[in-house]
Amino acid sequence: MIVVMRQSQLFTKTSKTGPADEPSKNAQLLTRGGFIYKNSAGVYSYLPLGWRVIGKISKIIREEMNAIGGQEMFMPALVEKTYMEKTGRGELGVGFRVKDKIGPEAYVLGWTHEEVIATITSKSINSYKDLPFYAYQIQTKFRSEGRAKSGLLRGHEFLMKDLYSFHESEEDLFKYYGRVKEAYFKVFERCGLKTIYTLAGGGAFTISNTHEFQVVAAVGEDTIFVCEKCGYAENSEISKLKQRDECSSHLPDGQKCGGRVLEKKSIEVGNIFPLGTKYAEAFGLEFQDKEGRKKPVVMGSYGIGVSRLMGTVVEVHHDEKGIIWPKEVAPFDAHLLCLSPENKNVRAEAERVYDLLEKNHVEVLY
Amino acid sequence: MIVVMRQSQLFTKTSKTGPADEPSKNAQLLTRGGFIYKNSAGVYSYLPLGWRVIGKISKIIREEMNAIGGQEMFMPALVEKTYMEKTGRGELGVGFRVKDKIGPEAYVLGWTHEEVIATITSKSINSYKDLPFYAYQIQTKFRSEGRAKSGLLRGHEFLMKDLYSFHESEEDLFKYYGRVKEAYFKVFERCGLKTIYTLAGGGAFTISNTHEFQVVAAVGEDTIFVCEKCGYAENSEISKLKQRDECSSHLPDGQKCGGRVLEKKSIEVGNIFPLGTKYAEAFGLEFQDKEGRKKPVVMGSYGIGVSRLMGTVVEVHHDEKGIIWPKEVAPFDAHLLCLSPENKNVRAEAERVYDLLEKNHVEVLY
Repeated sequence: MIVVMRQSQLFTKTSKTGPADEPSKNAQLLTRGGFIYKNSAGVYSYLPLGWRVIGKISKIIREEMNAIGGQEMFMPALVEKTYMEKTGRGELGVGFRVKDKIGPEAYVLGWTHEEVIATITSKSINSYKDLPFYAYQIQTKFRSEGRAKSGLLRGHEFLMKDLYSFHESEEDLFKYYGRVKEAYFKVFERCGLKTIYTLAGGGAFTISNTHEFQVVAAVGEDTIFVCEKCGYAENSEISKLKQRDECSSHLPDGQKCGGRVLEKKSIEVGNIFPLGTKYAEAFGLEFQDKEGRKKPVVMGSYGIGVSRLMGTVVEVHHDEKGIIWPKEVAPFDAHLLCLSPENKNVRAEAERVYDLLEKNHVEVLY
Repeated sequence: MIVVMRQSQLFTKTSKTGPADEPSKNAQLLTRGGFIYKNSAGVYSYLPLGWRVIGKISKIIREEMNAIGGQEMFMPALVEKTYMEKTGRGELGVGFRVKDKIGPEAYVLGWTHEEVIATITSKSINSYKDLPFYAYQIQTKFRSEGRAKSGLLRGHEFLMKDLYSFHESEEDLFKYYGRVKEAYFKVFERCGLKTIYTLAGGGAFTISNTHEFQVVAAVGEDTIFVCEKCGYAENSEISKLKQRDECSSHLPDGQKCGGRVLEKKSIEVGNIFPLGTKYAEAFGLEFQDKEGRKKPVVMGSYGIGVSRLMGTVVEVHHDEKGIIWPKEVAPFDAHLLCLSPENKNVRAEAERVYDLLEKNHVEVLY
């Protein structure tokens, strides 16, 4: 939907100085520009201009998820404790506990939804014919972690896209894993970000290592080691590499790369997890294969931090004058200013340009 | 965005019998059709088909809100208790309390956002030149109230559109109040619902009576008295009318109506509140008028229950075979079935029709 808007309709104002309590560049610039408002530590409102940027990012994500067969849905934020108890994740400190009048701490605020989707889908999957399928949502998530001091890069409440995939076999999972990888590169590229595909650690719920999409930025909380020649990268949490090591990856021709490894600070904007069957086993998510045998469904999960992506774009694309939005995520295509509104001719000409832009479906802020 | 979808991509299935623990027609039919999944009492997931309907309803609402100058934004669900303490609404039982690791009950889960928007806008409104403006959001709200037994009609977690308006004077507020009224009628009409504009009670935070948009339905929790001749209606909570009274409203020609008053059960799908200055006074939301005097901003607030609207459409539009979606909110325009997929010619013809529909931007489920 093309929108044209007169600036007088916006209730937000720009200011020349940023908030004193926000050290990060993204929070400074987004607050000064009237894109966001900080309600509490790690809790932000998206003002009309900021919400337009979130809308542009969400549109890109939806297009790329739909292109790889993703079905959009929407799961609740109130996750009954019984869901998380089955995997033991209900006790993790990251989940905010919600008190109901009925009893103490009836819910955890959804910080991830593997448990919920495994329960839902266990009701409708019976046969190998029901597989594979892919479902995603764009939703507010809640995480009670650490001190929130990086603006939109780490919040107690934030927007996330989470995709879940369901397969007959690990082989089929890894085929889809590759498709998601390519779709993620497209999403980040359309948002104006160059990402580094980085090997990261697995855990109790994954069948192998996982992968992260990292954007190099001084403000980043992650440290990665990346080869400047072949681009191979590892998260420092699992890496044995050191700055200036020789890269030992093998190039497509079988030769050892030998490039120089560099240590970089970076922001994780996406991650992909080959989950395997742990969740399926906990929730009785089974299917009958061609031979009639019952087997647990093989799952994958894939996240993109939507609001973090907006913060990352600002960290990467700004100069001393402010934010320089990449075209596809800019709140408007054009900003039209009438500098002499008291001059009738100037004003008429500005109105003419405004109408012309509107007619040609250019999104303009007047 | 036009979407065509092969039914095999949908992971949900229809069933002939509804859930035993769901007495309401909307929960029965929406669950059977694979539109929603009940996670807990009053807490639902929207499955791909259901989420498409929510998307259609949200699109209608956005178009009508934008048409009356509404700016879309997005406020947080984690509302710090200090916000609600200023109006004394933090202690109301309707708000779920959230525990943080940092301390006990740091937040209330947002069940309405007057306090939050009054705080945000108090930072940017200075002069009468900044008024009026209108901001809205479509967002998950949380209310801890009663036993949830009416499906999407009353949930602990639900989707809502809330619009807030900001004015110099009560006169300007009531002018806009009338515009919102007309926009609401358009929204409900496009969703296939006939609504009755009903006088309802005010409260500590309103300057006069409020109005509700009621849909007549046996399952409704509200009781209204409505004149079958002129359509004048009052909520039973404030009404002195009785079934079969003579309507004493005055018609446009000054004559007393005299129509027969009927008692009806109904569902409240929207409401509009002339708030006045109570919130502005609590949050220091002031402006300077033309004469340089400081005055509190006059506010209005206007709600539509988005998920409740979906439930209401189902209550009104179904027969013994299932839901009959009104055109604008149907998940798809067409449902194409190939009844003999083993017959090559039939299959080729079905594929041809599918391509044709796709090319002509008809949303089709194949």
